Amino acid sequence: MSNQALLSNELNQFEEFLVGSLEKYASDSSTLLKAMRYSLSTGGKRFRPLLVIAAVKFGKGSLQQAFPIAAALEWIHTYSLIHDDLPAMDNDDFRRGNPTTHKKFSEAIAILAGDALLTSAFTMLLDQEDLSLSKRVQLAKGLSEAAGSNGMVAGQMEDIEGESQELTIEQLEYIHKRKTGALIEYAISAGCLLADIPVNASVALLKYAEHLGLAYQIHNDLKDVVFNSAQSGKESKRDEELGKNTYPSLLGVEPAMENLKQEIELATEQIELIKNSIDVSKVDIDTLGVFIQLLDYVKINVGA
Amino acid sequence: MSNQALLSNELNQFEEFLVGSLEKYASDSSTLLKAMRYSLSTGGKRFRPLLVIAAVKFGKGSLQQAFPIAAALEWIHTYSLIHDDLPAMDNDDFRRGNPTTHKKFSEAIAILAGDALLTSAFTMLLDQEDLSLSKRVQLAKGLSEAAGSNGMVAGQMEDIEGESQELTIEQLEYIHKRKTGALIEYAISAGCLLADIPVNASVALLKYAEHLGLAYQIHNDLKDVVFNSAQSGKESKRDEELGKNTYPSLLGVEPAMENLKQEIELATEQIELIKNSIDVSKVDIDTLGVFIQLLDYVKINVGA
Repeated sequence: MSNQALLSNELNQFEEFLVGSLEKYASDSSTLLKAMRYSLSTGGKRFRPLLVIAAVKFGKGSLQQAFPIAAALEWIHTYSLIHDDLPAMDNDDFRRGNPTTHKKFSEAIAILAGDALLTSAFTMLLDQEDLSLSKRVQLAKGLSEAAGSNGMVAGQMEDIEGESQELTIEQLEYIHKRKTGALIEYAISAGCLLADIPVNASVALLKYAEHLGLAYQIHNDLKDVVFNSAQSGKESKRDEELGKNTYPSLLGVEPAMENLKQEIELATEQIELIKNSIDVSKVDIDTLGVFIQLLDYVKINVGA
Repeated sequence: MSNQALLSNELNQFEEFLVGSLEKYASDSSTLLKAMRYSLSTGGKRFRPLLVIAAVKFGKGSLQQAFPIAAALEWIHTYSLIHDDLPAMDNDDFRRGNPTTHKKFSEAIAILAGDALLTSAFTMLLDQEDLSLSKRVQLAKGLSEAAGSNGMVAGQMEDIEGESQELTIEQLEYIHKRKTGALIEYAISAGCLLADIPVNASVALLKYAEHLGLAYQIHNDLKDVVFNSAQSGKESKRDEELGKNTYPSLLGVEPAMENLKQEIELATEQIELIKNSIDVSKVDIDTLGVFIQLLDYVKINVGA
């Protein structure tokens, strides 16, 4: 069984868990539950959960413990998309080919569904009684840091602030390190913590995540320019219309592609480092291939 | 020194803590910090923090431990006001006589400032290393439950859903139990947990909080009808214009006043119960007077 197939199995199991997870924590308002479920169910690559699951598998940890944490992370990622799509923010009518939450329901319902996913993600995470108190505190605190006012939301705000001006590439990295990087790095660090991965490998995986996060963002920026609406499922060249700073707009398409390649190489190096130094009795060494495949995925989708 | 003066001292100390608390957890985006500070600083009675502080004082607990928890709660209350005021929600231009956050800044900034206050409240709470891991988990989980998709947000959603129809008084109570009651009850339960208040007294205080919460909501509904714009600091009869179900609109003003009186009596009974049964060596019995004074406050403000 290839690593890809292995992760497909895990991801299918996770998908079932993810949709089921809502009922337990959101039953008191049927409209709210409906809007949360819609937002959570309309596709999504489950990229962040996949990182948690891959790290936990690598560290021979428990997937039953990983799923609720990966789900909480996906709830928070989903809330950020709902709020990001609002008319006052990016004003997107479609996401992954489906009407955005405020188009399907209403702006008020979208705001509240986002608030609910964000808040109750912490309930779900802290409710995992088979995790030690220490791990629950670290995981919840880490998640709030990654998503909060020195993390994702700060990145969002600086991104909006930057719309009216041309940024330097350093400023753009500052934004993306927070806006998308923080949750991606959290996914890996949560997996390492859950599976008690040895510190050296954890450090290398976290560096991998940093490069992966940047690669992911550059890839995302390029996708809007390179692909058309039908392929990306959202309106083409939207960022450009909004006057957003992107890697291709600041560097040009070719240098941005080059930059992406470099980040992928740097990420690959970290995985090689782990492969050459880890005590193989403590980890599932085959799962390292998943991290490499994840980089292929970013590459392939750029249309190489 | 009277209880009232005592609480004023504590609240002044708390106010200083509250404003200072932002810097540590929101420094990465100056606009975000500015909007969070503005929203947090424009008045507010600090009603929920006051409940935490009163409970902790009653249980002879540490105020240094109480302040961050009370602040996290106030951050979350403040986020709910910011989002509630948005054009897609209640569309309020003023709160407590000041421009609402989206009027002062922009809708996008208001959405993000709310998201940031909500998320980073959990960082602040979980960061309190002088609290045991068990208390941190209980406090954070309880806060997310009270504020989340089976708590405050569910109440908000049902409130919006109810706008187009006349509710029964039971449905209205269902809404308010979540929309405002949940955070008020959390304030008391957090205080009880922080100060290790004996279980009998905790149960009675929680019942007190339930009645106080309803009294607070009825009082709030009546305020909009009885007072004019200048006194309440927001536009008069706003709820009526929005077609909202309120206690006076469903019951009439006089019966709503009667209802308020009854809730205050039931709350008072719980405090009397504690007074007559508690081991006075374990608590600061004088602080019970604060809970009675809080009820007076609701009474006085109705204009009796």
